[in-house]
Amino acid sequence: MATVEHFASTLPGGAYYDPARYAQEIARIFGEHWVCAGRAESVKRPGDFITVTIGDEHIVVVCGQDRTVRAFLNVCRHRGARICTDGAGSANVFQCRYHAWTYTLEGKLQGAPNIASFAGFDRDAHALVPVAIEMWQGLIWLNLSPMPGSLAEQVQPALHERFASVEQFERYGMSDLVTGKRITYDVAANWKLVVENFLECYHCAPMHPEFCALLPGFRVAVPPQGMVGTGTPFADDVEQFSLSGTGNRPRLPGLTEGEDRQYFGFIFPPNVLVSLLPDHVVVHTAHPRGPERTEVVCDWLFAPDVVADPAFDPGDTVAIFDLVNTQDWDVCELTQQGMRSRAYARGGTLVPAEHDLVSFHTLIQAWLGASGAEQ
Amino acid sequence: MATVEHFASTLPGGAYYDPARYAQEIARIFGEHWVCAGRAESVKRPGDFITVTIGDEHIVVVCGQDRTVRAFLNVCRHRGARICTDGAGSANVFQCRYHAWTYTLEGKLQGAPNIASFAGFDRDAHALVPVAIEMWQGLIWLNLSPMPGSLAEQVQPALHERFASVEQFERYGMSDLVTGKRITYDVAANWKLVVENFLECYHCAPMHPEFCALLPGFRVAVPPQGMVGTGTPFADDVEQFSLSGTGNRPRLPGLTEGEDRQYFGFIFPPNVLVSLLPDHVVVHTAHPRGPERTEVVCDWLFAPDVVADPAFDPGDTVAIFDLVNTQDWDVCELTQQGMRSRAYARGGTLVPAEHDLVSFHTLIQAWLGASGAEQ
Amino acid sequence: MATVEHFASTLPGGAYYDPARYAQEIARIFGEHWVCAGRAESVKRPGDFITVTIGDEHIVVVCGQDRTVRAFLNVCRHRGARICTDGAGSANVFQCRYHAWTYTLEGKLQGAPNIASFAGFDRDAHALVPVAIEMWQGLIWLNLSPMPGSLAEQVQPALHERFASVEQFERYGMSDLVTGKRITYDVAANWKLVVENFLECYHCAPMHPEFCALLPGFRVAVPPQGMVGTGTPFADDVEQFSLSGTGNRPRLPGLTEGEDRQYFGFIFPPNVLVSLLPDHVVVHTAHPRGPERTEVVCDWLFAPDVVADPAFDPGDTVAIFDLVNTQDWDVCELTQQGMRSRAYARGGTLVPAEHDLVSFHTLIQAWLGASGAEQ
Repeated sequence: MATVEHFASTLPGGAYYDPARYAQEIARIFGEHWVCAGRAESVKRPGDFITVTIGDEHIVVVCGQDRTVRAFLNVCRHRGARICTDGAGSANVFQCRYHAWTYTLEGKLQGAPNIASFAGFDRDAHALVPVAIEMWQGLIWLNLSPMPGSLAEQVQPALHERFASVEQFERYGMSDLVTGKRITYDVAANWKLVVENFLECYHCAPMHPEFCALLPGFRVAVPPQGMVGTGTPFADDVEQFSLSGTGNRPRLPGLTEGEDRQYFGFIFPPNVLVSLLPDHVVVHTAHPRGPERTEVVCDWLFAPDVVADPAFDPGDTVAIFDLVNTQDWDVCELTQQGMRSRAYARGGTLVPAEHDLVSFHTLIQAWLGASGAEQ
Repeated sequence: MATVEHFASTLPGGAYYDPARYAQEIARIFGEHWVCAGRAESVKRPGDFITVTIGDEHIVVVCGQDRTVRAFLNVCRHRGARICTDGAGSANVFQCRYHAWTYTLEGKLQGAPNIASFAGFDRDAHALVPVAIEMWQGLIWLNLSPMPGSLAEQVQPALHERFASVEQFERYGMSDLVTGKRITYDVAANWKLVVENFLECYHCAPMHPEFCALLPGFRVAVPPQGMVGTGTPFADDVEQFSLSGTGNRPRLPGLTEGEDRQYFGFIFPPNVLVSLLPDHVVVHTAHPRGPERTEVVCDWLFAPDVVADPAFDPGDTVAIFDLVNTQDWDVCELTQQGMRSRAYARGGTLVPAEHDLVSFHTLIQAWLGASGAEQ
Repeated sequence: MATVEHFASTLPGGAYYDPARYAQEIARIFGEHWVCAGRAESVKRPGDFITVTIGDEHIVVVCGQDRTVRAFLNVCRHRGARICTDGAGSANVFQCRYHAWTYTLEGKLQGAPNIASFAGFDRDAHALVPVAIEMWQGLIWLNLSPMPGSLAEQVQPALHERFASVEQFERYGMSDLVTGKRITYDVAANWKLVVENFLECYHCAPMHPEFCALLPGFRVAVPPQGMVGTGTPFADDVEQFSLSGTGNRPRLPGLTEGEDRQYFGFIFPPNVLVSLLPDHVVVHTAHPRGPERTEVVCDWLFAPDVVADPAFDPGDTVAIFDLVNTQDWDVCELTQQGMRSRAYARGGTLVPAEHDLVSFHTLIQAWLGASGAEQ
């Protein structure tokens, strides 16, 4: 590895707190790319809906009577009121509380008081504003752009960089898993610090002793994680990836015997962090909520029959990543506190084990475009 | 009615959250027009004072020894400290706490420590800064402009649009009424959404079932309210405008027999909402407190002998508009949440029953002037 | 005194709330001059450290193994995390929690995980960023400028203006005193209002009756404080400067008999307020924390043997300035409330007793430079 690459710079401090830079990222990254909005399992039956916030937009994702899942800006076309005020639920129609304008689950304006008397009113022009949506790997992906690019082109490179083949990843069967536990964290740090934290394990030895006890490969600076197709193996005395290191939950149905003692971590840019374990999958989604605030939704996914079992208890499994999360948010927040210093005006230093941050920064800057890169 | 007029647009979303637009409105609307600051009855006796905030200005309104009511910026001419720190009360003089500069109730600088030694000091040049004031209809009106326009020209059009004659309005005798109840509400919405909400009853059927039970005319899209000189009649089984619909409070002294079963609602622009009932009057004043925050002061006014009666109990009367208020602020806040959406960047749609909003927007834009209209 | 000078203006209101003006002051005054950061006694032994915030910078001040006290930006050179997270304490090294980069007490990068493998890594280029520091009069002075000016040139004029000779001041022996009590106040006012409040005693008669009972000279408009070399004498019946006026604490060791019944007050610009009493010294430091917020740290200093005495009780001594402080912050906050008024857009009026504010404003504007003066 060349010296030049070893000691690349981080982004300058301003990239982590400047409100104008943040607005650019919301517009160009979160406003023009595919963003994960939650779990497909939440909207399986007609009428099932969830709502989600991306930047300044509040969006409702709903399963239609035709079992097609659609997404709409959650804004009445009449006077602008938020229509759907719950985070999740089931509905027959969406009726605005203000003037009772009523939309079908497919977004059509079904009716409004006195609408029959509105001579010349174009009902179709007052449908809910649709948002591009795709369902992939059990995740809901939204794209606020009027001309959305390809989801595959956005997410496939991450798979090719991490796995020997897409099939290796697909054996985890993420589309079929269900959520056994969700924890939402409020982190006082820029969203990129949260993603960057996941992209290197140089901090694992000092920060995560419990995690490294399960996965001793992470104690060294360049973890096996960096090797395409190879996961990080469990310690010999570890039965299962859990805080206690014990457990006998069966491996996910698609996996083979050789795949039941390793960890894979990678991201779907911009903000989905995936951790694959033999018996469960952890998905973090880092939602920017301000230049110096991030909401992280963490879902622990299991095979459906596992969750359906009345004896299902994910406590020991959840405990390890919940602990790691807490440790990570703490240092993300300490890092945020340094971003305004003149010591960091031109950024810090990246070491070899942090090479994945360089790729992330390059991607971010490319998405921001030339003017973003000036920051 | 022409199609063009039916489906006018609302103001664009930015008019409801942009801080620069808000600053313009504070400067040009609330800084250059007459603004209602409270009740004249509060400052009847020499020394009586109230304080009020308009935009960035804190103002004291005080009844002088000569029984003339004056208003002053509540700022010491010496070092700028706020002088009068209570919301209401009675004073002999106003003395700044910082250096004991003392002003008469008429705003003159009466004295200051060592003032006799200040060679060449111009005492008159250090009087409190006056604010234009008029008392009309029992309301205190202030105008921060150094060249205030005519209050009559500002408020009379509202009367001509709503009543057959000014006399019809004046029979309610608002100048003689007294406050039986005041409730102050904190609303997380732009002040214009609060005013607009009052200007249409298209929302009354879905939002205000209790209100419509008293005034069934409001269940239809174009209420009788729109007809000059004619109020909205009470439902046949309603004795009085109260939550229970019962009561036997006598009608206001100036009213005639034919005027005792109807409701009139209208606004004095920019921000006073008036509801006339046979036995009481409700006055809402919407004070902007930020681009997305409004303080609404709601006064329930009655004849003086009614309030003076030891058995006076306004509870049932207050309950109906307090309920309506709560319902309204809820949807105003939901509407505020949609203002930043791209779905509302160019605004929403107005239906025929909302034609009074078009007039309001036209007036607002005229007051803002050309640069305001660009928003 | 000429009329022109009597009635100088204060700074315009905007100087006390405008965020751009505030940013200028942080950059040019607090970023390019010597700023008091605390007590030298806090960092006497190797490993002793304190942390302090100046503007956007968080700084660690630490006594090295060589007993030299140094200051560093508290930011890891790797990824920018805050390194030292306590307000004060003792350390052997500074280790960043994130990746365990470890710095010596002298700021050198001692080690980092895998550092031996970083081919071509320049360890010296990754030392903590130093901040200029001087110890004077028992106070720690920091200067964030890369080319700091002379501390003596900044602080000596204040001594020459107040004392007959520097020796008169030095007899108080501030370098040898120790802190008997610290109180930190959070004041909702611009830092300059806090300093200006200390620079005049025109407010003492109306605001501080207890203080004036001890020092009756402050009841008159032009206090003896104005006279070079002469302190304000105690009232005849006062034994000691304390709330009760009683006490028999011995005078500070360097003082002579004639110096044991007087008060001296003066400032070290920009933000250190010094009060000399025969038996103790009070030091206020006003730290700007926002355009309209100031943190005031108030230290009561005594001779070391006084504090070491098990019977030491500073309560009565502390009570008088704590009371004065509370009275002062109250009017500083009232004054802040007037700054945005149009009545104060061009500022207020200064009277003869406030002539020291003119000097302060002149100095501030000189430090801000031409563009600052435009405000």
